[in-house]
Amino acid sequence: MSEPEALAVSDRSRLRRKRQRGSYDRRVVDAILDEGLVCHVGFVDHGTPFVLPTAYARVGDVVYLHGAPGNHMLSTLAAGCPACLTVTLLDALVLSRAAMHHSMNYRSVVLFGSTTPVLDPEEKRVAVTAVVEHVVPGRGLDARAPTPQELRATAVVSFPIVEGSAKVRTGGPVEEPADLSLPVWAGEVPLRLVAGTPVPDADVPAGLAEPDYLRSRLDRLAAG
Amino acid sequence: MSEPEALAVSDRSRLRRKRQRGSYDRRVVDAILDEGLVCHVGFVDHGTPFVLPTAYARVGDVVYLHGAPGNHMLSTLAAGCPACLTVTLLDALVLSRAAMHHSMNYRSVVLFGSTTPVLDPEEKRVAVTAVVEHVVPGRGLDARAPTPQELRATAVVSFPIVEGSAKVRTGGPVEEPADLSLPVWAGEVPLRLVAGTPVPDADVPAGLAEPDYLRSRLDRLAAG
Repeated sequence: MSEPEALAVSDRSRLRRKRQRGSYDRRVVDAILDEGLVCHVGFVDHGTPFVLPTAYARVGDVVYLHGAPGNHMLSTLAAGCPACLTVTLLDALVLSRAAMHHSMNYRSVVLFGSTTPVLDPEEKRVAVTAVVEHVVPGRGLDARAPTPQELRATAVVSFPIVEGSAKVRTGGPVEEPADLSLPVWAGEVPLRLVAGTPVPDADVPAGLAEPDYLRSRLDRLAAG
Repeated sequence: MSEPEALAVSDRSRLRRKRQRGSYDRRVVDAILDEGLVCHVGFVDHGTPFVLPTAYARVGDVVYLHGAPGNHMLSTLAAGCPACLTVTLLDALVLSRAAMHHSMNYRSVVLFGSTTPVLDPEEKRVAVTAVVEHVVPGRGLDARAPTPQELRATAVVSFPIVEGSAKVRTGGPVEEPADLSLPVWAGEVPLRLVAGTPVPDADVPAGLAEPDYLRSRLDRLAAG
């Protein structure tokens, strides 16, 4: 393993409150990054913070993002600005007897760093394919590969997995002792993202079945 | 209706690319805000953009956020800094025949503004109760109400629903005409957040059933 085993702790990545929920462990961080489908990227343009959702993929020690070169986020990030990349997985609603103690169970990763433009066509191809593979493993080999022209017309940036932290809340509500005897139901409501029945587009021939890798992906989503 | 019917269009909220997916319509914006469970809030501290997930609730023309006063995000936002608030709902994976044209169907709202600290105890109570009601309608009346001490120990900020936009992608893949004849399955995989069986905590008496409002909430989540 050439990967570092822990994220760097800095003033901005040091966990402040509820430290027991936090982790700098790369295994925890990578598992969350690999399970999420969408990240929220923060950057500053003319003093305004922007937070935009986008697809991504982790490859080793970086997260790749891509998009049209005219895309505001990609063009800003391609200049190499400070950014924050957050992935949040929602696991449960947590209902406590007291209004104030309601919570959610979640797993999140917050990364800090500066993005680097990816200009090498081969690394761009790896990045674009990784994003497809991240969403549906196996798809990257089945789908028509990007052409050199398509890669030239795509902006790719890499975000370093170096500085940041993960936060994980699990378990039921945390109550005031006096509230425990209230006649109010309390507990967890598990949540998960589930895939429905795939809908082929109008041009898929009748004899072309859903690929096995898609079925595996659906099973994994359904199993939570 | 005293609500404005559209968000303000500014340099930072004007939709740039894929404008046909965008909307400034408050009905579209509010429906997305009301369906989401978690928002991602962006703010800048010492030049670093932060993006953190948190619970929220819309009440009329504002979004309320709350947390411990020592919480980094809340203490920064309570000072009234420029912020961005984003809610993203993921509706489908979109598999195209070409790697480059994979996409997702989603509904998102991006709001820009400055937060205002909420200091009035009554408005704080409304805000805290709204966050509980937002997650499980009916719960705000059932759970033990916040005490004056609890409200004093909670930081609340409001975020204006004035400037920003919604973006909605629906439908199947957009393909290059030459790719349509490829023997590659293409289409949509619907995604939805589903609630599992509630797990009461250890102190819920055996005779205390799940409340009806929780059952309604679960049905609504299950129905997508």
